[in-house]
Amino acid sequence: MEYFSDELTNLISELSRLPGIGKKSAQRMAFYLINLPVDRVEKLTSTILDARKNIRYCKTCLCLTDSEECPICGNPKRDHSTVMVVESTQDMVAYERVGQYNGVYHVLHGAISPALHIGPNDIKLKELISRLDGSVKEVILATNSSVEGEATAMMVKNYVRAVGDVRCTRIASGVPVGGDLEYIDEVTLLRALEGRREI
Amino acid sequence: MEYFSDELTNLISELSRLPGIGKKSAQRMAFYLINLPVDRVEKLTSTILDARKNIRYCKTCLCLTDSEECPICGNPKRDHSTVMVVESTQDMVAYERVGQYNGVYHVLHGAISPALHIGPNDIKLKELISRLDGSVKEVILATNSSVEGEATAMMVKNYVRAVGDVRCTRIASGVPVGGDLEYIDEVTLLRALEGRREI
Repeated sequence: MEYFSDELTNLISELSRLPGIGKKSAQRMAFYLINLPVDRVEKLTSTILDARKNIRYCKTCLCLTDSEECPICGNPKRDHSTVMVVESTQDMVAYERVGQYNGVYHVLHGAISPALHIGPNDIKLKELISRLDGSVKEVILATNSSVEGEATAMMVKNYVRAVGDVRCTRIASGVPVGGDLEYIDEVTLLRALEGRREI
Repeated sequence: MEYFSDELTNLISELSRLPGIGKKSAQRMAFYLINLPVDRVEKLTSTILDARKNIRYCKTCLCLTDSEECPICGNPKRDHSTVMVVESTQDMVAYERVGQYNGVYHVLHGAISPALHIGPNDIKLKELISRLDGSVKEVILATNSSVEGEATAMMVKNYVRAVGDVRCTRIASGVPVGGDLEYIDEVTLLRALEGRREI
């Protein structure tokens, strides 16, 4: 990269740290940015800083929001007795896009992973347990269908069961809609078989 | 996107204006950024602003650099009598990576395009002609091999020829190294045939 000036080299290396951005994309973005009008660049950088500084965790579900309580937790029309446990705010947004779920959420901000030394105390599990004060009737475990997500679901289930009278469910795992059985892995096929239902 | 807070929505929409960044990537980058430590985010934004504010055109070749003259134009070991004309600083960097070219460059910052109303006065052509004061012996036209790049090369050639005693060459067009003839388009195959050389 010695062909670029230092400022440009720094910019490219900073941009290439962003997720999904390699050296080529970073270079393209850098040239785009230095050709933009200064006020547009200032708008971008101030938007990034404002977002970083003002976004915080919702006091109830811990999703990322800009007020003390997120719009979902603050909505009296939602069913506050059903809590869907997800790994990240993005996962919560994915379910919100579906538009059919009327309960509330709890964001764990991660999944347990012995390999990465992430245990129950490194995710927002205590905060979930403290919400189970009798008003919550069902906890839906919607962690990812990965090894870590499944392990997290099992662990959360044990903690929830220990609290007492709370129903604990896990979202279904199986063949995705539109999926061609020929190309689906064995574990998913087995899960689909195990999870078969009367029609 | 109404599931996100305003700050986050703004951030995602700003990021998705970057080249090659769609909504999904912008969302991923936004979540990455708001989970970074504040000082890391400040470093990124100040790097972007510094680069935008300090990078300017080299007074001679007009490439993007952070000093009055770029390191290539300021290098007395380079052959200042050979000027390679390219469309962008990125193209110049591509040739610098090859490491075999010892002349200097001239960056046009674009190519003529009647469809987009980009004419000879919208690219840095005047600046090239003013460099042809007798010290330049050869102008190598290394604009892209696109319709616009070819048209630009033809036009620059006419301007250069009008100045007088300057050799004007065009980089070769043909089958790329490692290219399989079966999959190469007809125009390229024709160019490769027309450009054949004695071996």
